[in-house]
Amino acid sequence: MLRLAPLTFKRSMITAQAVVYQNHGPPKDVLFTQKFTIDDDNLSADQIVVKTIASPVNPSDINQIQGVYPSKPEKTLQFGTKEPAAPCGNEGLFEVLKVGSNVKNFQPGDWVIPAQVNFGTWRTHALATEDDFIKLKKGLTVNQGATISVNPPTAYLMLTHYVKLTPAKDWYVQNGGTSAVGRYASQIGKLLGFNSISVVRDQHESTSTIGELEELGATKVITEKQNLDREVSAQLKQQVKDTQGQVKLALNCVGGASSQGIARKLDRDGLMLTYGGMSMKPVTIPTSLFIFKNITTAGFWVTELLKNDPELKVKVLDQIQDWYVDGKLKDYPSKVLNVGQDKLEDLHKTYLEGTEGSGGKYLVEYK
Amino acid sequence: MLRLAPLTFKRSMITAQAVVYQNHGPPKDVLFTQKFTIDDDNLSADQIVVKTIASPVNPSDINQIQGVYPSKPEKTLQFGTKEPAAPCGNEGLFEVLKVGSNVKNFQPGDWVIPAQVNFGTWRTHALATEDDFIKLKKGLTVNQGATISVNPPTAYLMLTHYVKLTPAKDWYVQNGGTSAVGRYASQIGKLLGFNSISVVRDQHESTSTIGELEELGATKVITEKQNLDREVSAQLKQQVKDTQGQVKLALNCVGGASSQGIARKLDRDGLMLTYGGMSMKPVTIPTSLFIFKNITTAGFWVTELLKNDPELKVKVLDQIQDWYVDGKLKDYPSKVLNVGQDKLEDLHKTYLEGTEGSGGKYLVEYK
Repeated sequence: MLRLAPLTFKRSMITAQAVVYQNHGPPKDVLFTQKFTIDDDNLSADQIVVKTIASPVNPSDINQIQGVYPSKPEKTLQFGTKEPAAPCGNEGLFEVLKVGSNVKNFQPGDWVIPAQVNFGTWRTHALATEDDFIKLKKGLTVNQGATISVNPPTAYLMLTHYVKLTPAKDWYVQNGGTSAVGRYASQIGKLLGFNSISVVRDQHESTSTIGELEELGATKVITEKQNLDREVSAQLKQQVKDTQGQVKLALNCVGGASSQGIARKLDRDGLMLTYGGMSMKPVTIPTSLFIFKNITTAGFWVTELLKNDPELKVKVLDQIQDWYVDGKLKDYPSKVLNVGQDKLEDLHKTYLEGTEGSGGKYLVEYK
Repeated sequence: MLRLAPLTFKRSMITAQAVVYQNHGPPKDVLFTQKFTIDDDNLSADQIVVKTIASPVNPSDINQIQGVYPSKPEKTLQFGTKEPAAPCGNEGLFEVLKVGSNVKNFQPGDWVIPAQVNFGTWRTHALATEDDFIKLKKGLTVNQGATISVNPPTAYLMLTHYVKLTPAKDWYVQNGGTSAVGRYASQIGKLLGFNSISVVRDQHESTSTIGELEELGATKVITEKQNLDREVSAQLKQQVKDTQGQVKLALNCVGGASSQGIARKLDRDGLMLTYGGMSMKPVTIPTSLFIFKNITTAGFWVTELLKNDPELKVKVLDQIQDWYVDGKLKDYPSKVLNVGQDKLEDLHKTYLEGTEGSGGKYLVEYK
């Protein structure tokens, strides 16, 4: 008598890895790789399965792991840990593998990014829903797509969302001119027609950096020493006057004396936005600027602003993608860390390289 | 033959004195008394002649003379100097002596104050027009009338013009709690139902000053040392929580570490207004307060605000006068310097006493 084996479906469960932590601490002490599975044959109607193309290591990712960042992913059991664990990473580029029956706006092959922060982008795959993603346009590079959510919107929104600068006349001033946001601001400022003063560290004096930033779009590049020099400030004042514009906006990511220097360059009623504090020194503003020049200083945090305004996020990302596709905006280059099949078991070790590396931005790319 | 003397009108020209300067410098080097006359028998229709009842010596008056204040009186020949000279003093109380035929809103005996700054209030008399003055209500004291234009409106406007505090719930925090503005703020805050934390110098610890300020209206008085203490801040946070309110506003007239201490007490989205810098140190704000707590800091200058909004000035002065007349608001006491007939020739010497005196506010009263 012939015995038939029971009929089974061959199920193609995806084996995935994610970098997670259970307790806050230095990344090397708390990160580990957690293996989990995704059942991509039984998607509910609105579900989407994606695989990761690349995800960067941003300073805020590290601060989240350390427990010193106010925005945090929730700990969860969904990765199969015994105790709740939180996934790492906020920015990343994914490719759609499979979509549920009711998903209208995505199809396999689309490039997508998370709609919100705290998604956990240091992982190989994800099972999520349509609402969790924003689709990117065709024509971006991997680096452009994987780093589009934080730095370019920060630069664009600081230049457009608070103060109305008149093209070909008005100015903004920024410190941290060589930073990623600084370089995006120089380019976007120029695309929008704004004049700008970009302050760079003294070490860049008489290097090619100054010419490079001017080529990107900065009207004038000065060193921190010049930022604090009265004579240089007087010359700049004249240059601003010649354009019949005003310095209406200052972008500060340094603090300390540098923030004072750029605040002094503001004209009456100007606004300074602080979005970083690289010197680790507090923002310092002379009393007289507040009282007699009516300067206002505020903070800028792209996470908080866009969390509360998803439409704005879509609008900003559209503009940045158009500039990328048209070749008008250059992305800040990353140092690439490649992950092949052999590195998946210890995925966290590749990201650790990124957290410990210096002098650049690291991007983990999946091959 | 009888010769008749020509017919003459007896003219009662007023002999007046004003304290003026031609060049900026230390008051003792540049002030002098200029005698001039006012022809009060030939007023044009809209003119008014006033005599001075009292005028204070404010720090900004001294800074104007020194040439370090952005708002300045114009130099003029109207006082009869050979070279143009500027009059001193911005605040003062006058009594109407005589009015032109077309003046409707003033009559002799009325108490008035200048509608604008830079009027020159360190003088015995003035000839001006109806528009130059605001009439005060009956029932004020000399000190109340003579010091109503600067400090009480500063306190009132900072508490009402920028942030909406909910009575019986919300809080503001201020440093310089013993200053004139600080004491007005404590009282006006209480009149409006706001909770408050007032920071005073360490020397006031275990003196009667703390009880005095609480009696004026401060909900809680702490020293600068306590202002920078984490445990005290945690206790205050709890106290604020108990009221179901938030610390929405900080008033800074000190700068340096003190400004940092009060900024840290602000809840999310709070505003700090800077209206003085008694420590001579710049305003210092930690970067994280800007980015993660969305604090904004701005300046407050009563002169500029009210110059551009005369209706607001009238409204604010009305409210303050009502509180004075009703006995709800106590004026900050002045040290009085009396001027009689014998001191008019050297009027500037009396005001110099005020500029050089320490530990209080000086008011020059005309007898």
